[in-house]
Amino acid sequence: MIEHIKTLKSTRLFTNKPVDNQTKRLILEEATLAPTAGNMMMYAMLDVVDQDLKDKLSVSCDNQPFINTAPMVVVFCSDNHRFNEGAQHFYQANLRDPGPGDFLLAVSDTLIVAHHAVMIAHTLGLGSCYIGDVLENYEYHQELLNLPPHVMPVCMVVFGYPTDTQKARTKPGRFDLDFVLHQNTYQSKAMPLHQDIILKRNQAMQLAHIDASAYYKDYVNRKYNSDFMAEMNRSVAAMMKQFL
Amino acid sequence: MIEHIKTLKSTRLFTNKPVDNQTKRLILEEATLAPTAGNMMMYAMLDVVDQDLKDKLSVSCDNQPFINTAPMVVVFCSDNHRFNEGAQHFYQANLRDPGPGDFLLAVSDTLIVAHHAVMIAHTLGLGSCYIGDVLENYEYHQELLNLPPHVMPVCMVVFGYPTDTQKARTKPGRFDLDFVLHQNTYQSKAMPLHQDIILKRNQAMQLAHIDASAYYKDYVNRKYNSDFMAEMNRSVAAMMKQFL
Repeated sequence: MIEHIKTLKSTRLFTNKPVDNQTKRLILEEATLAPTAGNMMMYAMLDVVDQDLKDKLSVSCDNQPFINTAPMVVVFCSDNHRFNEGAQHFYQANLRDPGPGDFLLAVSDTLIVAHHAVMIAHTLGLGSCYIGDVLENYEYHQELLNLPPHVMPVCMVVFGYPTDTQKARTKPGRFDLDFVLHQNTYQSKAMPLHQDIILKRNQAMQLAHIDASAYYKDYVNRKYNSDFMAEMNRSVAAMMKQFL
Repeated sequence: MIEHIKTLKSTRLFTNKPVDNQTKRLILEEATLAPTAGNMMMYAMLDVVDQDLKDKLSVSCDNQPFINTAPMVVVFCSDNHRFNEGAQHFYQANLRDPGPGDFLLAVSDTLIVAHHAVMIAHTLGLGSCYIGDVLENYEYHQELLNLPPHVMPVCMVVFGYPTDTQKARTKPGRFDLDFVLHQNTYQSKAMPLHQDIILKRNQAMQLAHIDASAYYKDYVNRKYNSDFMAEMNRSVAAMMKQFL
């Protein structure tokens, strides 16, 4: 089973085979058995089947055209609305608004249930890919997805049956465990370790010419200082504002 | 395999059997193969082996004594420090500070890798339990765990071999999928549905006397309006401040 878990990799290209309703329901139903803080299930799953909505999301999520052709698209939202609405109706009309701790705990529930769904889909032979870009353009997504206050799009996952090309694709290598593992307390990693671990990873990916300097230059320009990260920072600040 | 995933449940009581280093390393190493945004692995795993540190965490995380006897304790942190330190050293000294989008993306990476570790441990016969309370007392945990700015304790997971009592324990039932599933866009759940779904879940847990009113009363008082949620809201606000 460990070997099977090992084969999980992001899949962006899917065959035309649809994900039938029974399979979809199985994935999402089993996913609700994931651990959840206080058994409260503070998340919402939006099962996006409308083609126009898929088209719009594929534009608003950094123009990634594989989104609108994916057979199954789920937006996983943190939900601090459902519980509060119920609690206000059935018990306490003047309930306090959710705060940043309620939000982050709901975000935790949301990512855990999303990853549970990803693992279950993998077990059923489906591929999947996380789309973090749903964190961008909050105001637009709020309107598009009819999100009430305190319901936030945390991650989108596309699912489907992988093409042969995708099945054959080599999974990108990871950094050594020692780059992220600390004993007891956090200790900043030494710069020679950055150099060694980045080079080792890139050698394994046949990218031996990319040393730490080239790696950081590329990632700073292509990711950290990108337009989409600027937009994500703006958008998430707008989300957080609701809880502060 | 679906049946195996189904059996995952939170385990708080463990046998005396230690988790040997090989097993621990296997869990954490395989966990790094989890999906990660841009292959950047924006997380840190603190492997807490020091007994004094375990004792302190069991107090600061809402006085839960099963933490200090757990054979394996890992604090999963979002890490917006490691990349930035490397990038500043190897490429751009005047790099911008991480923003709320960088933080939430790192939080996503962190929870996905934590849940990957939980699933791998489950496959190896180990039980685990998420401790969300590590979101409380940020300033104390920052000092205790030597966390630099922009490294945030997102979740703690305790691992070990479950006792027979824990193995026999019935997993608490979940709400029906329809309580969290929405087609295309978010639609608030009607109050009769709250009533039905909460009652159905509680009936299945032999708690048929707890209807929606009793449920919301209990949860508002025991969770939402609790001292620990007030502290979590204060603490997470302090974390977020670093990114705003």
